[in-house]
Amino acid sequence: MKDFAGTPGTFTGLVLRVSQCLFAAGSIASVVTAAGFFRYTAFCYLIASMGLQVFWSFALAWLDSYALVKKKIIHNPILVSLFVIGDWVTATLSLSAAASSAGIAVLFYRDLGVCHGDCLKYQMSISLAFMSWVTIKTSALIMLWILFTG
Amino acid sequence: MKDFAGTPGTFTGLVLRVSQCLFAAGSIASVVTAAGFFRYTAFCYLIASMGLQVFWSFALAWLDSYALVKKKIIHNPILVSLFVIGDWVTATLSLSAAASSAGIAVLFYRDLGVCHGDCLKYQMSISLAFMSWVTIKTSALIMLWILFTG
Repeated sequence: MKDFAGTPGTFTGLVLRVSQCLFAAGSIASVVTAAGFFRYTAFCYLIASMGLQVFWSFALAWLDSYALVKKKIIHNPILVSLFVIGDWVTATLSLSAAASSAGIAVLFYRDLGVCHGDCLKYQMSISLAFMSWVTIKTSALIMLWILFTG
Repeated sequence: MKDFAGTPGTFTGLVLRVSQCLFAAGSIASVVTAAGFFRYTAFCYLIASMGLQVFWSFALAWLDSYALVKKKIIHNPILVSLFVIGDWVTATLSLSAAASSAGIAVLFYRDLGVCHGDCLKYQMSISLAFMSWVTIKTSALIMLWILFTG
């Protein structure tokens, strides 16, 4: 299997996983400190999705660190298939959660001209969720490439 | 390049493209007949995204039909790269548009308990948009596989 920037067990792969984790954790932190977020299903879905993202990315970051320290190769086809499934599921959930929350934010901010609770915190949370999606999508594409090219 | 179900120039490939077209056109038809859709940015974005989907899928359906009738092979690497980019862009836009509209629909229907205009039409439109996304995502994955495996 190929070994290039972003693949599992490389420093860039670890950086990608840590970024996903930090963006997702930032998104959760931003939305839970906003007043009344629990009244909106979309924001609760955002928290659930970003929570799953933190959990998944943290596990893979830990695995990358272990592979880096022990100088182990983790390009096993079964492991890579699992990474592909996990990455694609979390990427799809992250994008849909970020987009549905963005729909609500645009509705309040632009369409209705009202801002319930802490608008800026919602916007910050959504931006961080989109950044988390960009990094997980990058990982997902790299994983798919490794899987398809063997 | 590999030739299996769903690849460009095959009957299943054509069926996928026609399905994408029909689901996206159905989604637009459903939302534009609902009263007051233009007041919500998310629904306008859904129409724009589904419109692009119809245009893209119709062009590729036409190309598939041409390849089937003339028995031409259209697995040229440059063409496949273009298909990959187009499919991934339209798939991402479709999912984000469907999810942001779903966010609004859930807000009205469940969180606020109010249904502005034709709720059922909005729900039908969002369901069709998600079905369109499933079919375009399938095409996108097949294209990526063709590109990566050469």
